[in-house]
Amino acid sequence: MRKLETLLFPIGQLQQFSTRVFAHFGVPEDDARLAATVLASSDLRGIDSHGISRLPIYARYLADGSTNPRPNIKVVRQSPSTATVDGDNGMGLVVGPKANSLAMEKAATVGSGWVGVCNSNHFGIAGYYPMQAIDRDMIGWALTNGASWVAPIWGTQRRLGTNPLAIAFPGCEQPPIVIDMATSAVSYGKIQLAMRHGEPIPTGWALDSDGVATNDPHDVAGNGSLLPLGSDRELGGHKGYCLASMVDILCGVLSGANWGPFVPPFVQSEYNRVERKVGKETGHFFGAMRIDGFIDPDEFKRQIDEWIRTFRSTKPVEGTSGPIIPGDPERKTQEHRLRTGVPLLTSVVEQLRTLANETRIPLD
Amino acid sequence: MRKLETLLFPIGQLQQFSTRVFAHFGVPEDDARLAATVLASSDLRGIDSHGISRLPIYARYLADGSTNPRPNIKVVRQSPSTATVDGDNGMGLVVGPKANSLAMEKAATVGSGWVGVCNSNHFGIAGYYPMQAIDRDMIGWALTNGASWVAPIWGTQRRLGTNPLAIAFPGCEQPPIVIDMATSAVSYGKIQLAMRHGEPIPTGWALDSDGVATNDPHDVAGNGSLLPLGSDRELGGHKGYCLASMVDILCGVLSGANWGPFVPPFVQSEYNRVERKVGKETGHFFGAMRIDGFIDPDEFKRQIDEWIRTFRSTKPVEGTSGPIIPGDPERKTQEHRLRTGVPLLTSVVEQLRTLANETRIPLD
Repeated sequence: MRKLETLLFPIGQLQQFSTRVFAHFGVPEDDARLAATVLASSDLRGIDSHGISRLPIYARYLADGSTNPRPNIKVVRQSPSTATVDGDNGMGLVVGPKANSLAMEKAATVGSGWVGVCNSNHFGIAGYYPMQAIDRDMIGWALTNGASWVAPIWGTQRRLGTNPLAIAFPGCEQPPIVIDMATSAVSYGKIQLAMRHGEPIPTGWALDSDGVATNDPHDVAGNGSLLPLGSDRELGGHKGYCLASMVDILCGVLSGANWGPFVPPFVQSEYNRVERKVGKETGHFFGAMRIDGFIDPDEFKRQIDEWIRTFRSTKPVEGTSGPIIPGDPERKTQEHRLRTGVPLLTSVVEQLRTLANETRIPLD
Repeated sequence: MRKLETLLFPIGQLQQFSTRVFAHFGVPEDDARLAATVLASSDLRGIDSHGISRLPIYARYLADGSTNPRPNIKVVRQSPSTATVDGDNGMGLVVGPKANSLAMEKAATVGSGWVGVCNSNHFGIAGYYPMQAIDRDMIGWALTNGASWVAPIWGTQRRLGTNPLAIAFPGCEQPPIVIDMATSAVSYGKIQLAMRHGEPIPTGWALDSDGVATNDPHDVAGNGSLLPLGSDRELGGHKGYCLASMVDILCGVLSGANWGPFVPPFVQSEYNRVERKVGKETGHFFGAMRIDGFIDPDEFKRQIDEWIRTFRSTKPVEGTSGPIIPGDPERKTQEHRLRTGVPLLTSVVEQLRTLANETRIPLD
């Protein structure tokens, strides 16, 4: 596969640019910094599709009023350990961290906190949120629904988002285990990559518009769909469908947000695809559990270390370096990018420069 | 595939037999009834591998002291919304329902309850537990770890159980959505079935002892391993590995039970495979959340109805009847078996008759 051209930027520079752009479009200073931090964590961890490459879209939605720059984020219902937050159509990058903080506050008080969110928008990488809980000796969870790309098993229509699930566990001497995974076989980003490179996709990733397995990425971009994790009935695709449904219901139905095919897409031009509204915008679900509500945290972290060592020492499949611990690749990317900078595709840099010109905020 | 011979039994008859057998081996009357109820729910729902077919093994472990018939089940640590329960090496069929009840009690008080369990044993079908929460307008969760069968991606050794995850959501006019799924591509039961019928297994289910994909079910029974949901790296097998790890850590590490390759197997003869103990027996994790801690329960259930109707009406893939709602097949089996009886393989009936002779408890 041909390598695409990139330019390197120090993360601080990108983060400052994002902060100023958000502020330029009316986001309060603190919120702008928060949103830029979530974006930067994505760029650092190598989830390039969810980082600053999306800044122009966030900016456009703030500019055209699709997203509310100064949301009045409200708790609409709660119990000591649960709550539903209405994000007032603010950026998910702002609503998400605040709802996640509420989950952690509740956990600090009664052992665990669970917060559903409606009326929000794309919240960045799911993995950002549980990593906040680690420093407080908590186990954090984050789930979100999203625009539908995934067909339920035996269905030919898009009905579910790639609905990710993230959870993290702190270690003692070992780095934390950070799980952050879509519940589809692959993300849409991999389909885009195949189109860009003119390459076929493996069987098990997608269906065409008739619900037939396809190797042509353009079929997906057309009216096809992604397959859930497990791909087909024989390999357990019904389980991926179950997982995506679980995420959808916890994020959408439980909070009063949209769910299933009615979740609004991130990119406005696709918005018309949604037939109707069944709730308020996009939904998330956050959780936090105090480890000491279950076990001595030091004991837990020592066992996590031992768990990691056990899995790392599993005999490798020939031709591989052996099992990876969830979160390893992203942490290594982060260590590398903190030293060398974040590589951005030249096409992304061009879009950022256009944004810089429009806002008169220097990128470099 | 040749159909194996079966005999039909009314569920009440099986349940009474199980109850009396448990009591015969020293289990207190109430606990015996509880354990038999969990077993029966499995037979009714068509999860034949987890029902009365296992009664002879439960009985043997009670008889030889491997399992404690009269456990002193204790809360060893708790906060208002969390707890860890030590099952005192009791049957999972007794410890599980009690820990699940504690989760629901905590939810009734502070909105949600989360209970880790150590020192337990096989707890039957995971789906039984969240179904108890439905009647209380709660969302229930149940997870358990188990003896290792599953290789982590890029590893050649068994390191994780088929670690199921269950969650259920009540509807209003529609039946509840009940998700109950292993986090492996397939259960070991499907490997056994293939061996019994002398048939190959599909690529994507298992590896041989060298970590190479195999179509021979005997390779798994030997020293091979099952693959996680998603099968291989290309189709997202690392995500199934992440899910199984999440279940393992929540059930094992968080509660102080064994985890990963150290979880004791259900069948004693395999026990020697476990190198050492890192905790107390098998672990579970239960959760319960009051729906009204997030949203009006009637509104929630009406939206679940609408969710179900939306998914049922998805255009079917040709040659199929269209998408299934999680829990549909099991509920239909239950309706059918309540009318016609539970079909048991003649080999299972023979084992039950032997048990009946030993205990002088009539099966028929």
